[in-house]
Parts: sequence; structure tokens; C-alpha cells
Amino acid sequence: MASEFDLIQQYFTKPSHHTNLSVGDDAALISVSQGMELAIATDMLVAGTHFFHDAAPYDIGWKALAVNVSDMAAMGAQPKWATLALALPEVNEAWLSEFSRGFFTCAEQFNVDLIGGDTTRGPLNISVTILGEVPKNQALKRDGAQAEDDIWVSGNIGSAAAGLAHLQGKIKLENDALEASIHALHRPMPRISLGLALRGSANSAIDISDGLAADLGHILKASNVGADIFIKHIPHSPALSANNDARFQACILGGGDDYELCFTAPRAAREKIETLSGTLNLPLARIGNTCTALGLRVYDAENKLVQLQAKGYDHFA
Amino acid sequence: MASEFDLIQQYFTKPSHHTNLSVGDDAALISVSQGMELAIATDMLVAGTHFFHDAAPYDIGWKALAVNVSDMAAMGAQPKWATLALALPEVNEAWLSEFSRGFFTCAEQFNVDLIGGDTTRGPLNISVTILGEVPKNQALKRDGAQAEDDIWVSGNIGSAAAGLAHLQGKIKLENDALEASIHALHRPMPRISLGLALRGSANSAIDISDGLAADLGHILKASNVGADIFIKHIPHSPALSANNDARFQACILGGGDDYELCFTAPRAAREKIETLSGTLNLPLARIGNTCTALGLRVYDAENKLVQLQAKGYDHFA
Repeated sequence: MASEFDLIQQYFTKPSHHTNLSVGDDAALISVSQGMELAIATDMLVAGTHFFHDAAPYDIGWKALAVNVSDMAAMGAQPKWATLALALPEVNEAWLSEFSRGFFTCAEQFNVDLIGGDTTRGPLNISVTILGEVPKNQALKRDGAQAEDDIWVSGNIGSAAAGLAHLQGKIKLENDALEASIHALHRPMPRISLGLALRGSANSAIDISDGLAADLGHILKASNVGADIFIKHIPHSPALSANNDARFQACILGGGDDYELCFTAPRAAREKIETLSGTLNLPLARIGNTCTALGLRVYDAENKLVQLQAKGYDHFA
Repeated sequence: MASEFDLIQQYFTKPSHHTNLSVGDDAALISVSQGMELAIATDMLVAGTHFFHDAAPYDIGWKALAVNVSDMAAMGAQPKWATLALALPEVNEAWLSEFSRGFFTCAEQFNVDLIGGDTTRGPLNISVTILGEVPKNQALKRDGAQAEDDIWVSGNIGSAAAGLAHLQGKIKLENDALEASIHALHRPMPRISLGLALRGSANSAIDISDGLAADLGHILKASNVGADIFIKHIPHSPALSANNDARFQACILGGGDDYELCFTAPRAAREKIETLSGTLNLPLARIGNTCTALGLRVYDAENKLVQLQAKGYDHFA
């Protein structure tokens, strides 16, 4: 059987692009560019909690890095380096090869060097730490929203949740709607170009991992403002409108796993952001606005207040 | 039941000392000091693999950070920041409180800020990423050993392995020997002061996590040199000499989990290192020397060549 050192050599050692000392010593060494802050985030994915035990290893590898890259997008940071800690129940070379391929496809797409980590025996668990650079005092934080900011989201909201609901047998999707929803669930696309472009324009940002209501709620709490948002303005896949209202609301507001960005920006930035949508070929929708009255109010198609039920994903709720 | 966000707030949010933005956003923000490289390492601890399921949570918390701090020591880096990803099978507040106490006791001792991480549900798994600073081009690496270097180790070697062997019922320790061995196993003490002091003196360094023979072997391979070491010069606890030769050899050469430093230095540094031992009040023993003949040769008390059996810990061997 392959040893731990063989595994690291074979599946996790690739040429690095901006690293002084990479995989193979007690620690990696990097230099942070002058004038830059270093942004650091860690996300752990567990079999049975974040993905099905029989999920495709390519998708697990992609998603394990992508959800971390997404945290860089939410900060307006350029991802550059990552470490990977991997607990495996056994050495399954076919699984590892596919996992590695998914991980490095994402790494190459976002120019991230894998600089170190750990492999060990245990129930399948993947913990990634990502590091990126952002010019000093330009990071997009959660606490910068001002009252009367526009609230924006990128892409379609709720697609990943619809895909998950289908796999759980709660709803039935077909054809294009099925394919798009499963793709959104398994291959989230971090919005790095958007995050970088929003530096200096957005007042606050977050990536939608726990659900729109919960994640926007984090911004509102950190910024000490409230918000009104309108479901009719929230872009979503056709798959969702075809289902009933409760499911629609649950996926859109509480679904999570979208890894789209939710951000607030002053009205003065409206035109710039609309132009950006075209430049990036990425839908950016204005779904409401912040205000001084605390709390989040959501309005339905008839502009009636929705009773919020979905609270976002909490692993211990 | 406490939510994920409550848990983070209650157990993992402490004032930070050298962090621009800490726990609570999509990423933390830090500034690396001018002229410094950033050293980064990740170690994952899994219940049943790295510690017994009923191990004291204080010890698990201490050790999870300490083994990462030890990687900074091995690089000659000053640890400053850490992230913690934690998978828990359930919310057990008594366990979490003790785990947090052990983790932060270590963090405070080494002036490490916990700047972020993740909590999720799953089989108990702790993944820590540590970040530290080292002046450019001064890191202690594995590939710097020169032929005719002295080979040094700090502290006692094999104590943690003796403690583990006792807990596994393979040997029986008593009284002081038992206490010292269990302490070495559960509360490893990272050799940060030593690592910092060795900058500019040592040619190479590693921390002993997989066993002396295996870890010294990593230095030899990376540096393309060989070595002769002498068991009679390797400091060890009295508990080990009281046992038979095979066990003694297994613990000393292959035991791992010591988190002492093994390093090589030119003969010209000998006096400086002996002085350092007194300054740090830490035994530093010269156990042999490197040479151009590749491979590791170990000699017993009669200077006869030992057949190496213990190969160091490999999670998948």
C-alpha cells in the first residue's frame, strides 16, 4: 500500500507559482506583497454533513477548495495559497486521483498554490485553509454597510438548495433544471473577479453559504442596520418557480451553498455595478436596500411581509 | 442547544494581539512584518488515530495547537496566528469548555491569536493551521545539512512513545516514570525559544513527530547526506532503560510524538549551542554526525551497528 509520503508526493505535489518553499518541510514559506494585508479563511467539509458519502471525488475536491476561494471573493482578496488537511478511511487510489484532479482544476483556475497540509487516517474529512492578498484597508468586510445602501446579489439564488432537495427526494427536478441545480450544488463557482472589482465600490460583502437571509443577516448585525428585500427581485432558476411557495422560499432565502456574493453599495455606485455586470457577464441584481430600522424584512410578489422561517444552515441547530 | 454561532462566540472568541480582523468575517486579516517571510503549517488530529476517544479534552486542545507550534519551532519561526477547524459529533459544552481552555492555554503561552476557523458536525476531528514569521532567508529548513555537521536533539527522546506503549498495555510504567511519560504524550512542549535561537547557527532542523530515525531521515534525504548516530548519546527517560532493548529501541528511534527538535549544525557552532542549552535550561545532546556516505547508521552501546526496524509513524503503512 502507498505510504503517507508517497501519497503526498503523487497526488498533492505540483509546481508552485508564487511560493518560496512548498510541500515537504515542516512549514511552507511565502512572501506577502508590499502594501498588502493577508486574508485567511478555513472551511472543513465532512462526509455525510457537507456531501453524500458516494459523491463524486472530483466534485468533492473542487468544492473543498472552491468554498474557500469564495471566502476570498467575499473579502475582495486575490487567493494565492492553500493548505489541505485530509483524513481518509483508507487509501483508495482511484478516489484520491479524482479528488486531486478536482482540487487542482480549481487551484489552477484561480492560480492558487497548494503549499502544505497533512494526510491521516480517519473518517473522511477535508479541511482547507486559504490565503490571499488584499490592499491594506480595502478588504470588503461585513461591518461596512450604511443605511440606504443598495443590496445586491450575484447569479441565481437557491439553485444549490434545489439540487440538494432533489437528491434528498423532497422535490423532483428534470432535464435542464435538474442538471443546472446539481451543477450549482457540486461545482460552485467562486466570484473572485466580482470580489476584486467591488473593492472601493461595495460597503460590505459576504458569500452566501448559509442562505441569503442568514448571510445578509450577518452583514446587518455587524453593520448595525436593517434591510428590506423583495423576493420578486431575487434572481433564481426556473426550477424553483415551478415548485410551491414554501419550497421556493426555503431554497431562495435559507438554502445556502450558493457561493454567490451578497453585497451592499451606495446608490452612487449603481451605474458602475450595472456596467460591471456586463463586463463580467454575470447577473447582478438589486434586491432591496438597507435602512436604520433594524431587522430583515422580506416582501413577497404582492409586497406583503413574509414570515421568515428559514434561518440558514446551522450545523448544531 | 447552542447554535454554531453561539459556540464560536462563547468558546473561540478571545481578544487578539496582532491581528487586523479576527474571528467573525469571511476571512481574517493580518499584516506580515516588513522583511519577514510567513511560515505556514497544518496538522490534523483525529479521534482514535492521534488520541484515545476518552482523552481529556484539555489535553486534546493543548496538543492540537502545540504540534502546530512545534512546526514553527522547527522552522525557526515565531508563531503568531492560528485557525481552528473542528468537527464535533455533538455539542458537549463540558467537553468544549475544557478543549477551549487547553487550546487557549497553549495559545497564550506562545502568544498566538486564534483568528478564524470553522465548526461543523462530524466525527471528532481537529485541524489547525498555524502562521508565523521568520526573517527572509533565515528559516531552518530540512535541506541545509552539510556533511560533517553535528547532529543534535533537544530534551528526552522516546518518552511520549513510552507513555503510549503503557496506555496500550505493551509495557508497564509506574510512579514518576509513568507520570513523566504520560505528560510527554499529552502535553508536548514546542521548542520555540530553541528554534528562534538556532537561526544562523543550525544548518537544518525538524521536529520529531514521526520518530527520530524517520525525521532525521527526512533531513538526510532532503540534504543528500548520510549520518552515524549513537544510541548511548541519545538522552531518554529512565523509564526506557528499565525496559528491554527492543522496546527501548522502538521508543527511542521510532516512537514519534516527542516534538523535540533534531537539528544539524557545523562544529564551529558547538560551543554556542552548549551555552544555549544552559541559557534555555534545556538539555541539548550531540548524538552523532552527518557524512557523505548516504543512509542512516545507528550504533548501540558497544558501537555495533543496529538493524533498524522502526521506520517512524506512517498513517497508511
